[in-house]
Amino acid sequence: MSIPELTTHDLESILEFTVALARTAGELILEGSEAIQSVQASKDVSEKKNSVDLVTEYDVRVEELVKKELATKYPNFKFIGEESYSAGSRPPLTDEPTFCVDPIDGTTNFVHGFPFVCISLGLIYRRRPVLGVIFNPFLNHLYTGIKGKSSYLTKANGKPLKLPLASPPKPLPSLSQALIAIEWGSDRGEKTITSKASGFGRLAGNPEQDVKGGKMAHSLRSVGSAALNYALVAQGGLDLYWEVGCWPWDVCAGVVIAEGAGCVVTGSHAVFATTSSSPSFGDVTEEILTGRKYIVVRAIGETEVETALEAQKRIIQEFYSTVEDVDAN
Amino acid sequence: MSIPELTTHDLESILEFTVALARTAGELILEGSEAIQSVQASKDVSEKKNSVDLVTEYDVRVEELVKKELATKYPNFKFIGEESYSAGSRPPLTDEPTFCVDPIDGTTNFVHGFPFVCISLGLIYRRRPVLGVIFNPFLNHLYTGIKGKSSYLTKANGKPLKLPLASPPKPLPSLSQALIAIEWGSDRGEKTITSKASGFGRLAGNPEQDVKGGKMAHSLRSVGSAALNYALVAQGGLDLYWEVGCWPWDVCAGVVIAEGAGCVVTGSHAVFATTSSSPSFGDVTEEILTGRKYIVVRAIGETEVETALEAQKRIIQEFYSTVEDVDAN
Repeated sequence: MSIPELTTHDLESILEFTVALARTAGELILEGSEAIQSVQASKDVSEKKNSVDLVTEYDVRVEELVKKELATKYPNFKFIGEESYSAGSRPPLTDEPTFCVDPIDGTTNFVHGFPFVCISLGLIYRRRPVLGVIFNPFLNHLYTGIKGKSSYLTKANGKPLKLPLASPPKPLPSLSQALIAIEWGSDRGEKTITSKASGFGRLAGNPEQDVKGGKMAHSLRSVGSAALNYALVAQGGLDLYWEVGCWPWDVCAGVVIAEGAGCVVTGSHAVFATTSSSPSFGDVTEEILTGRKYIVVRAIGETEVETALEAQKRIIQEFYSTVEDVDAN
Repeated sequence: MSIPELTTHDLESILEFTVALARTAGELILEGSEAIQSVQASKDVSEKKNSVDLVTEYDVRVEELVKKELATKYPNFKFIGEESYSAGSRPPLTDEPTFCVDPIDGTTNFVHGFPFVCISLGLIYRRRPVLGVIFNPFLNHLYTGIKGKSSYLTKANGKPLKLPLASPPKPLPSLSQALIAIEWGSDRGEKTITSKASGFGRLAGNPEQDVKGGKMAHSLRSVGSAALNYALVAQGGLDLYWEVGCWPWDVCAGVVIAEGAGCVVTGSHAVFATTSSSPSFGDVTEEILTGRKYIVVRAIGETEVETALEAQKRIIQEFYSTVEDVDAN
């Protein structure tokens, strides 16, 4: 079967459709949030559905809505999401256009009513992420990107703002100047937690006050949504985000939006070590996209002594010398 | 001098005035954010002001604006803020009405353009916080409260939403069900960082996977603004927030908003241990307000076996058995 050709014009048309779809999905997410909060608050035990069931129910409803609309409009495109993997098989990527969707990213936030929840809707083509839409219905923040073009943030009904918001991008001399996104994740075993806690402590700690290897970062932030962490790094509100254990649908849209905002995205310590000196560094290959270990650094202003990419490499190097590589479970 | 009498009607009138003032201050904060981002991005070194200077400049400008407006409208009220303390003296509270203001809470976020920044405007009367206004101009979220009345969240131009958003409040069986706000703070010495990192690790860690004392909390969040953490706990989006090292102006408004949303606020391990069995538990005394160690737990639905306050005490007890008391520097 021949691969459908996707032009920039096609991608723009797909973006328009997926933005509208993300907004519709956003309404369903808000409806779900209200249902969950009121069920949790209900005292009537006989009427009480488990709120975890309700989360699953809305996760499935949003995914079904999105899948159905996409399949009707783009019948020849493939689809991957949590369901495709949880069925047991992990189908390899193909060259064909493939939607890669997390219907509700930030599920824990969704359960609690913490307003960092979004739909993350990406498109992969020829094994590379090429289009991304991230919509947070609680804040009414929409992030969009198409490979090779600029990314945008649209707040409520405002006009699209080009990312990063600071132009030209700000410099970043070292991690000591950085606001870093970290997450505690879902692997809570002793090995991972000890490694993360001590790594985070080194990022925050002051080497002049006896923290060995301390970087004295400006601070660490945790908002609990991988897609929104990408969006915030793209925006320039966070300098770096590192995570282990995510899946392609958590990051696919974010990768495109980040790249279109001048960020660099790569993979694990090992991937970084082997690719950072290659001319194609910054190319989010299938290995990186499915590798479940990701790091993204915001656009950095070039200086007389350093290009933007050199600065981004330097920051990743500093980060990876501070935080250990834990395994994705 | 006799203490001016403040009726509920007076407080309502002060709330109206301070809400308008917070919105005006919010515009100045947004202006400051743009100035800082563009200065950071500037390549013209000769034109380049240090962005830290600019942050200080806007901090001072917002504080001066607020102080002046408050002094004109309420000439007999006192004012405390960072400046009052940094002058060296720490004037004790009096019975007189005293505004307690943080002009820009979340300064690190402000520098970076991370959208969790607010003005926090509180009023103390007879040594108790009695009124609170927290406004985040980036998200256009306004939180308000008056002692003894309900607290509200107003998003953009929407209608005020009574807090907590879930009504009646949700139950909270244990920390294992909790979304907990923690912050890395400004004290980055070895003792504090090691204590925090291991405490946070225990909150997140799974006791069934070898994390000794692990609570397996749903997750940990860090947004970097004390006032907004209070607001998010009041809203019910976070279950608990603990911090050491804040000042009264960081929490004064938040305390009122949290209390009006059914939260309980108290102080350090020691304060909790000595007051939790007293009938006045939950009274934020001068000792607690100026004690620089705070814990706040959201409204919890009562059950057949437990009142709301008993549930809140149980959660604080579980938290304080997991995390050490570090010193505020």
